[in-house]
Amino acid sequence: MGRVRVDLNISLDGYATTTDQTPDDPIGQDWHRLTAAYVATRTMQERVLGQTSKGTTGIDDDYAAAYFEGIGAEIMGAGMFGLHLHPDDPDWQGWWGPNPPFGCPVFVLTHEQRPSLEMEGGTTFHFVQTSADETLARAREAAGDLDVRIGGGIRTVRPYLAAGLVDRLHVGIAPILLGRGENLWTDLRELERDYEVTSEVAESGTVHVTFSR
Amino acid sequence: MGRVRVDLNISLDGYATTTDQTPDDPIGQDWHRLTAAYVATRTMQERVLGQTSKGTTGIDDDYAAAYFEGIGAEIMGAGMFGLHLHPDDPDWQGWWGPNPPFGCPVFVLTHEQRPSLEMEGGTTFHFVQTSADETLARAREAAGDLDVRIGGGIRTVRPYLAAGLVDRLHVGIAPILLGRGENLWTDLRELERDYEVTSEVAESGTVHVTFSR
Repeated sequence: MGRVRVDLNISLDGYATTTDQTPDDPIGQDWHRLTAAYVATRTMQERVLGQTSKGTTGIDDDYAAAYFEGIGAEIMGAGMFGLHLHPDDPDWQGWWGPNPPFGCPVFVLTHEQRPSLEMEGGTTFHFVQTSADETLARAREAAGDLDVRIGGGIRTVRPYLAAGLVDRLHVGIAPILLGRGENLWTDLRELERDYEVTSEVAESGTVHVTFSR
Repeated sequence: MGRVRVDLNISLDGYATTTDQTPDDPIGQDWHRLTAAYVATRTMQERVLGQTSKGTTGIDDDYAAAYFEGIGAEIMGAGMFGLHLHPDDPDWQGWWGPNPPFGCPVFVLTHEQRPSLEMEGGTTFHFVQTSADETLARAREAAGDLDVRIGGGIRTVRPYLAAGLVDRLHVGIAPILLGRGENLWTDLRELERDYEVTSEVAESGTVHVTFSR
């Protein structure tokens, strides 16, 4: 059976979400600062932005490449799919474009009932109303021997972490202080006792910390 | 004029204090876990515990050695001196022993009026009732061309950080999650904008992050 994996970008003070969105700047500057080193990698440039032969190589890119390796199914919240952006549009296919970077079944947790969406490149979005446990069971079955990723956002990830269901947690810590948002570390006291924790610093200054078991 | 420096041990989730003290275990296990790699260094073994030729060498020890270099005066809270342990005993000389590791004037912030205490090895404790600014001015004068350290605890340090008075902040981040206590990062959003931030990982797994300007 594969592992359950989580990869997140967080700030030095633990925040995984940003709070400076405005109507004119719907993503916000903090999100760019939080994810800049990751987005800049060759892997993310190629896989997500379709820019070949661009981007950084090195430690950040090693983690970005590993992000896509060995994943057989993904679980994400409705926000990560983008359901909230067009709530009343049954034709909205999410903000990942016609060829999403997942290449596997993706289970989107939502109260909204929608037919599954088969996209290019092997990604199929399934919209599910199941519990965290039930969704994981379904994702494991879809993944077979491969790993399941809990993609995000933070509110989707945390129940899996708190329940001890995550086998590998990797955080890319940007050396910035956001001061507000949703904090990954809330109520995870002594999480490390069930894991081996290793860290390394990328050329960009991002500190990569990995909890694995 | 010298710089103002801060060095702290914090957990991965930012806590600089621990909360598991009991009457039978007045320091608590969390404090040991938070400071274990630092206490284990050759420098700390020699300077604080009087154990020569023991302790780790390597990156943690480089930071421990740097801790004591170039400091001309120190500011600390009453708790770091240990005033709370014997509140009604005018003869109590703090918990740093007869030969404290500071070797310079130490300004202890307290409401309690006490005569200055001259110890072995060049440490003199002055008990002051002045504001953070006034205390810093006095410490700067005592330090001359050398640096002033704001030693701790966290409640003593934070006003200096928030006021932009700290030139170099070094944190040794232990790869543990404490989940509660006083968080160093509270209300320091975008602190990094005034600093260069560098990080490195020690052999122990401690992540050393330094804000400098």
